[in-house]
Amino acid sequence: MAPRVYLDWNATTPLRAEARAAMIAAMDVVGNPSSVHAEGRAAKSLMEKARGQIAAALGADGADIVFTSGATEAAALACAGRTLHCADIEHEAVSAWCVPDLGVDAAGQVEVVEPAQSALQLANSETGIVQTLPEGLAVSDLTQAFGKLPLAFNWMGCDMGLVSAHKLGGPKGAGALILRRGLDVAAQLKGGGQEMGRRAGTENLIGIAGFAAAAEAAARDLADGVWERVSGIRNILESALSAEANETISVGKGGARLPNTICLVTPGWKGETQVMQMDLAGFAVSAGSACSSGKVRASRVLRAMGFDEGAAASALRISLGPETTEEQVLRFADAWTAQLRRARARA
Amino acid sequence: MAPRVYLDWNATTPLRAEARAAMIAAMDVVGNPSSVHAEGRAAKSLMEKARGQIAAALGADGADIVFTSGATEAAALACAGRTLHCADIEHEAVSAWCVPDLGVDAAGQVEVVEPAQSALQLANSETGIVQTLPEGLAVSDLTQAFGKLPLAFNWMGCDMGLVSAHKLGGPKGAGALILRRGLDVAAQLKGGGQEMGRRAGTENLIGIAGFAAAAEAAARDLADGVWERVSGIRNILESALSAEANETISVGKGGARLPNTICLVTPGWKGETQVMQMDLAGFAVSAGSACSSGKVRASRVLRAMGFDEGAAASALRISLGPETTEEQVLRFADAWTAQLRRARARA
Repeated sequence: MAPRVYLDWNATTPLRAEARAAMIAAMDVVGNPSSVHAEGRAAKSLMEKARGQIAAALGADGADIVFTSGATEAAALACAGRTLHCADIEHEAVSAWCVPDLGVDAAGQVEVVEPAQSALQLANSETGIVQTLPEGLAVSDLTQAFGKLPLAFNWMGCDMGLVSAHKLGGPKGAGALILRRGLDVAAQLKGGGQEMGRRAGTENLIGIAGFAAAAEAAARDLADGVWERVSGIRNILESALSAEANETISVGKGGARLPNTICLVTPGWKGETQVMQMDLAGFAVSAGSACSSGKVRASRVLRAMGFDEGAAASALRISLGPETTEEQVLRFADAWTAQLRRARARA
Repeated sequence: MAPRVYLDWNATTPLRAEARAAMIAAMDVVGNPSSVHAEGRAAKSLMEKARGQIAAALGADGADIVFTSGATEAAALACAGRTLHCADIEHEAVSAWCVPDLGVDAAGQVEVVEPAQSALQLANSETGIVQTLPEGLAVSDLTQAFGKLPLAFNWMGCDMGLVSAHKLGGPKGAGALILRRGLDVAAQLKGGGQEMGRRAGTENLIGIAGFAAAAEAAARDLADGVWERVSGIRNILESALSAEANETISVGKGGARLPNTICLVTPGWKGETQVMQMDLAGFAVSAGSACSSGKVRASRVLRAMGFDEGAAASALRISLGPETTEEQVLRFADAWTAQLRRARARA
């Protein structure tokens, strides 16, 4: 049997070799970063080195970086208690705290009315569609963009950014809130004075070390043109898929998109069914964001873009990574097309 | 020069070999536990195995275990918005959410008035003093006790417990809230439906694997009598320290205490100074809980027990672990006694 093919990189990524090595090295660091003795200072020093690496990868030198347990916690820190406006294409970790009343056009672009009172993602996890961020934006979810698109937080004109380690080759369970210098947030986890009083709790040192190494490696890959190659493979896949699927829509095609994402809508063929059929055939893909998987329902993101309930329930997300090969995606295209023919035959 | 000696195990512990191996194995698990494909199910399966291991180590089979980023987050989940009563000996991660109006006697025992409206730790991080928990207690911080004392959550008569991985040989950044079955808590991190809707955010899979392996190993050590040996070494150290330090009080001595902790009060010799002098001499010890280190001030815990400001600022915590040897503690006793003599000579 052919080896399985992982095409769900927007859900989570394999751990990069650099992150693995950094995490294993950090396992030998004994101290608590809050302790004042040599062991504590060594742990603190590792953490501050990681903060610098992440700032550099994000173009956020001089900005404040608050380590969190992931982008979900960073979103709560940035958004809770503020009633920001957003569109219904935001990840639920953001929209849960916001009023989802911003309009989205058919191309997936959000019209922000008051940037200082709004949250807007840079790239969508389901469609890959990239937004043009307005100047003075309160919060931007950079989770899917970080590592795949060139970013310069300091030039984005945005107050706060949210990032996650496990979307760019770092471990699950580590993320950060990026704050323009001079801004502050109220702590939600109280207790110790960690993270300058903004986030209590002993820091996830091993995870943070892995996050920093992954961010650094991701920035290097980006500079080396790795995602241009991925984008080329994505385009080959997209052509192969559309060759036979006339009724299938590739959402966001032609506009600004992440280099690795395809969102296919095939009316009449449920996304959940496609995921299960592809899984059995040896391919890992998704019918929406992983966090809302298991809930069999139409994509909020596609509904917000104007797709009807049936179409929004018939979406398949295929997301590639630096390790994805042309051979793999062509094998996927064959398997998917074969299933599409059977679905048609049944209909 | 002699190798450094780590005597600050209540602040954080070295990573156990079992945790290290489990974490390295988990690094090869690619999927997101929320994904429905084979890779996601493998990740989910690893997480559920870990949940079972931790429940077994805690004597909490059948109770609900909600994974968090540590005991601080578990404390917020358990205590926020409830205005529970507590004594001022609780860790700040608990007391930050409570009314600290419960009385503490000179032996460090807390008098709980309404158990169902109160939080009470099982063991104190600074003194090691162990409480007798009243039946029907709302919340107990088990962080320092877990792994060092035999625990059976299901028989403690307590609604919720808080635990942390890095106090028993697991990684920093992983913890859990334990809930008696049938109870619930309101999510503070919103977004995805992880942890049965109680805690959104992709789970720290590698950290959770390490937590579970460490908990299992800690339970085995405990059953094997490892802490009786540690307690013997602690007693040797305590005798050696008191041999020359007539004015020094060993807080909690003679009562129920963790097997590994000594809290020394030497009036007139600041704890912070002792920590720095011992650090230079090659020993890692603490003047209080690590989370409040750096803040040069008297111990809240000792103040609550009736020590005056000066005495409470002159505390030193020495905490041992399974790897601590008699040779190490006798070396510490010599170094500490030498510094004590110098402090006396200066005074």
